[in-house]
Amino acid sequence: MKQDLRGITIRTAGQNLYEFTDQLIRWTGASGIRRGLLTVFVRHTSASLLVQENADPDVRHDLLAFLRRLIPENDPLYVHTLEGPDDMPAHVKAALTATSLSIPVDDGRPVLGTWQGVYLFEHRRAPHTREITLHLIGE
Amino acid sequence: MKQDLRGITIRTAGQNLYEFTDQLIRWTGASGIRRGLLTVFVRHTSASLLVQENADPDVRHDLLAFLRRLIPENDPLYVHTLEGPDDMPAHVKAALTATSLSIPVDDGRPVLGTWQGVYLFEHRRAPHTREITLHLIGE
Amino acid sequence: MKQDLRGITIRTAGQNLYEFTDQLIRWTGASGIRRGLLTVFVRHTSASLLVQENADPDVRHDLLAFLRRLIPENDPLYVHTLEGPDDMPAHVKAALTATSLSIPVDDGRPVLGTWQGVYLFEHRRAPHTREITLHLIGE
Repeated sequence: MKQDLRGITIRTAGQNLYEFTDQLIRWTGASGIRRGLLTVFVRHTSASLLVQENADPDVRHDLLAFLRRLIPENDPLYVHTLEGPDDMPAHVKAALTATSLSIPVDDGRPVLGTWQGVYLFEHRRAPHTREITLHLIGE
Repeated sequence: MKQDLRGITIRTAGQNLYEFTDQLIRWTGASGIRRGLLTVFVRHTSASLLVQENADPDVRHDLLAFLRRLIPENDPLYVHTLEGPDDMPAHVKAALTATSLSIPVDDGRPVLGTWQGVYLFEHRRAPHTREITLHLIGE
Repeated sequence: MKQDLRGITIRTAGQNLYEFTDQLIRWTGASGIRRGLLTVFVRHTSASLLVQENADPDVRHDLLAFLRRLIPENDPLYVHTLEGPDDMPAHVKAALTATSLSIPVDDGRPVLGTWQGVYLFEHRRAPHTREITLHLIGE
């Protein structure tokens, strides 16, 4: 049994989904681990992780639009407004989506379904550099 | 340290919660692993995973009703409508619930609480065959 | 490769976020595991886990307020009301947040970002004793 760990960074350009499935597949393939467990962890509280359909881009568009309406900016409820109108909605969106993902690995590949892509979910409007830690254990 | 991996399928009959806790307990027990980590991963983007109370069925009923009202069909917001009025709500519900679950194993059993059941959460109206991958590591 | 498993309890005093990041850091440090994977699992369906900002307490305040408005008590939709008006909202909140978290470990510490704290999210009004299972694997 062996393991590997790696930090990656993703540069974002505003509220959107940034796919990095290929990086996961390449890193897993290069590790020599054929069977095991891949963990993806995002080191932020205003960005999160999402597994979603990578076929029709309208799915991502609608998902972003739905969350923007459900969790609007300038909500009079918010006390925490100093970091901008998009900051508190970003924290709520991150709370309702994933901070970590665990994906089994078989035949040297994460066992993602045909239409599953792995995305960094950026919830802030301004560009950010986001850090993700990957961990792999198996043999 | 050893590991095991297995794919299971669950046939669904419309929007509902389908419990498969027993399969997890049996598979973990049969593995010979006494202490370790069980990972459950769903290979779809319009179905998800849920740990919820398995005592009163009204809890599941109310949860389904709440999500149907929060994320309605025929929302004028949606652009992605080609796959039917229940498809985009299914993607949103999947995004807001879990794609993977990690459950420690002790004494040869997942350490689920007394009232915790593990469910496949089917978000589509039509019957589907859903694939779940299980991974177990430990000794 | 080695592993460790430990149950911890957190006493709660009503709907709130209870940080236990320090316990995770200390337990990981004491384990002798320098690199690996830490899993946190909550054994309840009316409490959950959250990774959120531990700097400005207003973020937690606003998050709680947002969820209370989104998932109100005494919703006429609910059939499951026998356990009190806060029970069904607690199950919905737990369904929309995390039951398990997976955090890679490097240099003997969980790789949490600078502002990330790990919280038990209590959704019930009355005090409860909540059980969390921690699992660590690595070397």
